[in-house]
Amino acid sequence: MSSSPSTTTKTNGHVNGHSTRDPKERVLTKETINPAVLKAEYAVRGEIAIRAEELREMCATEEGRKKLGFDDVISCNIGNPQQLEQKPITFFRQVASLTEYPELLENPLVKQIYPSDAIARAKTLLEDIGSIGAYSHSKGVPAIRKNVAAFLEERDGYPADPEMIFLTAGASTGVSNILQVMISHDNCAVLIPIPQYPLYTAAIALNSAHPIPYYLKEEAAWSTDPNEMREAVHKAREEGKDVRAVVVINPGNPTGQCLSLDNMKDIIKMAYEEKLVLLADEVYQTNVFDDDIRDDGEEPKPFYSFKKVLKSLGEPYASNLELISFHSLSKGQIGECGRRGGFFELVNFNEDAHDQIYKLASIQLCPGLQGQIGIDMMVQPPKKGDESYEQYHNEKMEIHRLLRQRSTEIAEAFSKWEGITCNPADGAMYLFPKLTLPPKAIEAAKKAGKAPDAFYCLQLLEKTGICVVPGSGFGQVPGTFHFRTTFLAPQTDEFVARMGKFHADFMKEYS
Amino acid sequence: MSSSPSTTTKTNGHVNGHSTRDPKERVLTKETINPAVLKAEYAVRGEIAIRAEELREMCATEEGRKKLGFDDVISCNIGNPQQLEQKPITFFRQVASLTEYPELLENPLVKQIYPSDAIARAKTLLEDIGSIGAYSHSKGVPAIRKNVAAFLEERDGYPADPEMIFLTAGASTGVSNILQVMISHDNCAVLIPIPQYPLYTAAIALNSAHPIPYYLKEEAAWSTDPNEMREAVHKAREEGKDVRAVVVINPGNPTGQCLSLDNMKDIIKMAYEEKLVLLADEVYQTNVFDDDIRDDGEEPKPFYSFKKVLKSLGEPYASNLELISFHSLSKGQIGECGRRGGFFELVNFNEDAHDQIYKLASIQLCPGLQGQIGIDMMVQPPKKGDESYEQYHNEKMEIHRLLRQRSTEIAEAFSKWEGITCNPADGAMYLFPKLTLPPKAIEAAKKAGKAPDAFYCLQLLEKTGICVVPGSGFGQVPGTFHFRTTFLAPQTDEFVARMGKFHADFMKEYS
Repeated sequence: MSSSPSTTTKTNGHVNGHSTRDPKERVLTKETINPAVLKAEYAVRGEIAIRAEELREMCATEEGRKKLGFDDVISCNIGNPQQLEQKPITFFRQVASLTEYPELLENPLVKQIYPSDAIARAKTLLEDIGSIGAYSHSKGVPAIRKNVAAFLEERDGYPADPEMIFLTAGASTGVSNILQVMISHDNCAVLIPIPQYPLYTAAIALNSAHPIPYYLKEEAAWSTDPNEMREAVHKAREEGKDVRAVVVINPGNPTGQCLSLDNMKDIIKMAYEEKLVLLADEVYQTNVFDDDIRDDGEEPKPFYSFKKVLKSLGEPYASNLELISFHSLSKGQIGECGRRGGFFELVNFNEDAHDQIYKLASIQLCPGLQGQIGIDMMVQPPKKGDESYEQYHNEKMEIHRLLRQRSTEIAEAFSKWEGITCNPADGAMYLFPKLTLPPKAIEAAKKAGKAPDAFYCLQLLEKTGICVVPGSGFGQVPGTFHFRTTFLAPQTDEFVARMGKFHADFMKEYS
Repeated sequence: MSSSPSTTTKTNGHVNGHSTRDPKERVLTKETINPAVLKAEYAVRGEIAIRAEELREMCATEEGRKKLGFDDVISCNIGNPQQLEQKPITFFRQVASLTEYPELLENPLVKQIYPSDAIARAKTLLEDIGSIGAYSHSKGVPAIRKNVAAFLEERDGYPADPEMIFLTAGASTGVSNILQVMISHDNCAVLIPIPQYPLYTAAIALNSAHPIPYYLKEEAAWSTDPNEMREAVHKAREEGKDVRAVVVINPGNPTGQCLSLDNMKDIIKMAYEEKLVLLADEVYQTNVFDDDIRDDGEEPKPFYSFKKVLKSLGEPYASNLELISFHSLSKGQIGECGRRGGFFELVNFNEDAHDQIYKLASIQLCPGLQGQIGIDMMVQPPKKGDESYEQYHNEKMEIHRLLRQRSTEIAEAFSKWEGITCNPADGAMYLFPKLTLPPKAIEAAKKAGKAPDAFYCLQLLEKTGICVVPGSGFGQVPGTFHFRTTFLAPQTDEFVARMGKFHADFMKEYS
């Protein structure tokens, strides 16, 4: 490994102020930094996103805007709706506001400002929590976990145990903690979809484990082939890998696909028979366009949770497959990324595993209380008859409608451009179009030392201010090129116009 | 290692639904769980804290209270002030409340409810942040980091670079991330004080590194001997350990001591000469009773930051020692643990180290926005002349006075009891008294399979409802016994009376 300090500074006794140290030498260098950290990559906030921040700063001055030839950066690199003008759900913010300042509840003016159900919810939460300025139980406030369990029971039709529910600071913390508990040696491996959300490759790299890819079928609407998954497990095991778990992202990120019920059943059977823990990333569960009429006349694919499908399959699966489902406050129509709220449910885990996961959570003390309160509202939104119901419902449906509309408009625009094909999104917040780049562009990228799609995306950013993430950051079939864009930016026309012109120019330049 | 799945399920092709798997077998068991996670311990929320939660639930019913013989659990195991009736600072909560619900700012009633400086601060923050529902920059909102830098410059008299400041979800996340970046192989080691805050041993265990103890001198007010630290480094290096860093907690946790200026200078020189990164845990920096008149007539010891002392030492130290200082929103007079806010500053780190720390932060997306906003208020509280100044100042000083008073009262009570000695606290939120247990108690503990101080603390909990943490959870000189108690509980008289009776009975029973 590195030239360690031990070899250069070993002394027998005191140095008495006379150091032989080279002042400019540093303890922490590329040679001494944890190689697992060095290896980890996270393209969503990688090189292109960092460059986008620089351009955004330039856009703050007229001189900068003139130099760049555009007025603003359009951040389509990350699912961060409220950065892109998406309004928060009013009820959520009213309750949060009241819990921050409980004295308001005793102010006679409060009824003129807040609806009665927001006031009632804030009171209930404060009774359950005490002060939101205190650490809670490390799994999260017990009363909120009970409400999450009730939500899961209602959603799935099967019992949920509040003690198996852990509130987290966003789904990412949950995924990272679970992988840390699950990976016990350098030969451990986890089956992941390709393309995937790069949190998985990053967390696997940070734990010095191996990702085993299974490829989503672009030609068949990004579907999954459980037989190929099984073969990938067998091959990895033949190579000596200790494959422990399989990750499924549904609805998909970056692909936006929804798995069919049959597909899910086969994945569950595969995971059970191959002795894998099933990690179900279901953070986009309400981002499903099942009310969409698709042009190809196919059936819409509604969201089913893996837990529901598992339980409905019966034994031996239902009581034995170790399943974790992750959910988040950051996605859906809520989009409260900045609160860092999420949860996971452990299904069929043994006590030792639960205890170790709990211990890890306790070392981290607790997730932020406003994230936890957000989860309470997510699992118990205003109901019909409540004062806030109509406003809540309208806000939610309008966001849903806008996302679906933008998704369709952008996918349709892409499909008209030379060298781009794009599956429509069943859900989530992303499109993942395929680029067919001219050989000259690939050559130019090689010369610049970039992956061809990264080369394309960097030029797109520099010339238009549009920030998307190259497919190489998510993984793709070797030799194919893609990019991921969110469909959150409000100015769809502007996005399509700027990008369309860039794309045509790019294709022409390298034709 | 474990009997891995690879040996039992390797197959050549499809299983076709016929699994040879034993349904009750689990993938995640004690044998397959990450041994680093198994090894990690966190006594503050360990066995005794978990038992305390059970007793707390029993206290909810009259039957339970009758059975226990007490009405409530007094949680002195964790520095969680707002769980123990400490009121939040009003200004902080007013601003938080307004940022949650920006529509309030347009409501004409707002001026009847909120002071003008809270309204102004909320407006400024929202202009800087946009929506608090959006992910921020992974290091934290740039404008807030600028304010932190200004605070550090004011505190220390030396420049601070906002790009070297990382906002975090409490200090714990920062410590964990830094150790993860810094520990690159299984032979890495970190010098830590004993007794220590168990986050350090936990984080070191999770990264499969080795803690190297240096003992604080109980007989000399928990002071530190830099020569012994140096000897500990040499000894560890002679044994082949790659010692990378030294942790200093000042004011101390669990000991409450403040380091003298000379002590700090010597520690800095030692760290520089021995090529160690200095991790300065300074989260209790405003919990210093420097206005206290001590009975022994000694000089009060005010808080100096390690950065200030480092910079004042001049070269080669000032521009070369790699120093990280951690701060938190959870301690001080603020005590906003539930917001999960904190920050650290990197001093003298090279670019590669910065970049890797930044990448790790970006994989975690960002700390919660309400934690970040809390940091903004912590570093920029109301100033003289502002509408909220007087209330802010009075609230802060009253919390400070109460903590100091309780600290003195409890330490004085302890000093009167047989078999307990206790250094007074210079600061922080804790006392760490020494127990001289009778041989029969030590024998009884052995029979029960407990460390003697854990045995004492468990009995204290079962008989009085008072929850404290045994010294064995923090580390102590072998053969000595201690416990850590916070002095946050409002009912000092009640605490002293309940505990005094228990202690006398315990000493009698085992005499």
